[in-house]
Amino acid sequence: MRHALEIARRGPATGPNPRVGCVLLGPDGVVLAEGWHRGAGTPHAEVAALSDAAQRGASVRGATAVVTLEPCNHTGRTGPCSEALLAAGISRVVLSVPDPNPVAAGGAERLRAAGVDVETGLLADEGRELLGAWLPSVERGRPFVTLKLATSLDGRVAAADGTSRWITSEVARQHAHGLRGEVDAIVVGTGTALVDDPSLTARNAAGELRGHQPLRVVVGHRDLPAAARLHGPGGELVQVRTHDPADVLATLAQRDVRHVLVEGGPTLAAAFLTAGLVDEVHAYVAPVLLGSGRSALADLGITTIADALRLTTRSVRPLGPDVLVVATVDPHTPQEH
Amino acid sequence: MRHALEIARRGPATGPNPRVGCVLLGPDGVVLAEGWHRGAGTPHAEVAALSDAAQRGASVRGATAVVTLEPCNHTGRTGPCSEALLAAGISRVVLSVPDPNPVAAGGAERLRAAGVDVETGLLADEGRELLGAWLPSVERGRPFVTLKLATSLDGRVAAADGTSRWITSEVARQHAHGLRGEVDAIVVGTGTALVDDPSLTARNAAGELRGHQPLRVVVGHRDLPAAARLHGPGGELVQVRTHDPADVLATLAQRDVRHVLVEGGPTLAAAFLTAGLVDEVHAYVAPVLLGSGRSALADLGITTIADALRLTTRSVRPLGPDVLVVATVDPHTPQEH
Repeated sequence: MRHALEIARRGPATGPNPRVGCVLLGPDGVVLAEGWHRGAGTPHAEVAALSDAAQRGASVRGATAVVTLEPCNHTGRTGPCSEALLAAGISRVVLSVPDPNPVAAGGAERLRAAGVDVETGLLADEGRELLGAWLPSVERGRPFVTLKLATSLDGRVAAADGTSRWITSEVARQHAHGLRGEVDAIVVGTGTALVDDPSLTARNAAGELRGHQPLRVVVGHRDLPAAARLHGPGGELVQVRTHDPADVLATLAQRDVRHVLVEGGPTLAAAFLTAGLVDEVHAYVAPVLLGSGRSALADLGITTIADALRLTTRSVRPLGPDVLVVATVDPHTPQEH
Repeated sequence: MRHALEIARRGPATGPNPRVGCVLLGPDGVVLAEGWHRGAGTPHAEVAALSDAAQRGASVRGATAVVTLEPCNHTGRTGPCSEALLAAGISRVVLSVPDPNPVAAGGAERLRAAGVDVETGLLADEGRELLGAWLPSVERGRPFVTLKLATSLDGRVAAADGTSRWITSEVARQHAHGLRGEVDAIVVGTGTALVDDPSLTARNAAGELRGHQPLRVVVGHRDLPAAARLHGPGGELVQVRTHDPADVLATLAQRDVRHVLVEGGPTLAAAFLTAGLVDEVHAYVAPVLLGSGRSALADLGITTIADALRLTTRSVRPLGPDVLVVATVDPHTPQEH
């Protein structure tokens, strides 16, 4: 399974489909073949592994398939993997994570009904981690939402005159570009788009565009000027003319977006938070004091400390002089403000 | 020297005098005696070590004194250590940190003039660390000032209705009590004293008062009610009727205060920062979002990002769900806002 997880990582981290790896083992435990999913429209990992076996001339009858995600049981752009495994004569399947997708699930059941020995849950934590935002996105039926904050120690995102470049360090900003390279879409409000004129691109340390560029999404009704940097090189630009975060996510889900990064400003961030549509917060905090200027968040409707929105810290990481706090919002705590 | 640094730590970390350790070595390198300073009014480390030698009946003529701080050269409540070492016939002195105090310095020079071999700077970093706030306090001619902030991720210190108990976790608050136990005085403004009714005591995990209680200092003109918790058990209560941080520090310096902890509120914190009288910031940041309520700092007069007050991060430490960022203010950067 460790090898299956490892080869799965060769697949794309972004896009509508999960990263999956599959290793076929002979009865003596020897590796017969392997395969991983290379992205939407290409064969699933199980089918890729069966093809690999055929190319190598290896017989897989009676073999064991070790796969990081439950084999699918539906016909999408590719056929059901459960049937492909049965047709090939696989007699045992070991999987890490059950498929949470109601459309595709049922593979394990189908295999068991056909007499295949199915074991689930092996290295489940690692299996879930590999899937990243895909898993909660499927579980919640909407894109997974990460809110990024980049603030001074006193919670400001700009000085009194509106200037904000830069509060955080080069190291932290480079890290944030890495995060952009891992999501499907970046979302900002029209206010931020008009005031900051951001590019919303994912760049490497040399300042060059990375291979994967997320969709650039502007939320709100105001038009962008023709000269806006958002019209320049980078991911496709989409304007969603609404103020309802749920509408934004529905629109993006239709475009196969699994992971959304909300980058600002304070009003949009507050709208997503009060709608209960933030799953995770990445807060870059710089050792800077401002004393005035725009705060990271607009009003959340919270009036007393007992109603504070309390997150669960997942990691604390120094980044140069700054610190990155990653914290999650409990999905079982609706924000009723 | 390592042993001298170790025994020095037995002395009190607070109070007007530095922690100092002294070890006397025979010509063959054998330890003859040792001593450390136990607090104001008691013998200095060198004199304590000479007494220890006398008690043990050890001859120290021609011996080496290893001492963590340059022997003093002035007569305070005790005589000059330089003369005591000379009178005892010490022939060599190895010291870690030169005495920055213009009144007491000159010991090394006096000893050299009398023919003693003096070596300085051994384990100087450890020697400076041992001295804590005492060293910068003497160097700057005023108490060393630590500003404590305890904020939400969006920089708030209270919710919209003024409630603030608690933003940070039990772990972080316990850590802050440890810090209180290491300072000579805690300072708050009358606003904080009246609104929050704090005790400003240093307590252990069981909630009991620690052995050392810092002076409790309230800055401002308004009177405290008779029922205020500040009148309860804890350190001596002092009200300084001014709004000038320099006046506050001058008053506290007269009371032998070396290390001041400024705990709030936003107005007092901003006054100390704009006066350039904060040396170090301890920022406890909790994974909490509020969206409104009091910000950590009042206006600092900073209008644009280029004038932001940029600190130097010294450490980043997770404390339960929270994170403690310790950062210093460059003493060579006057804040001219």
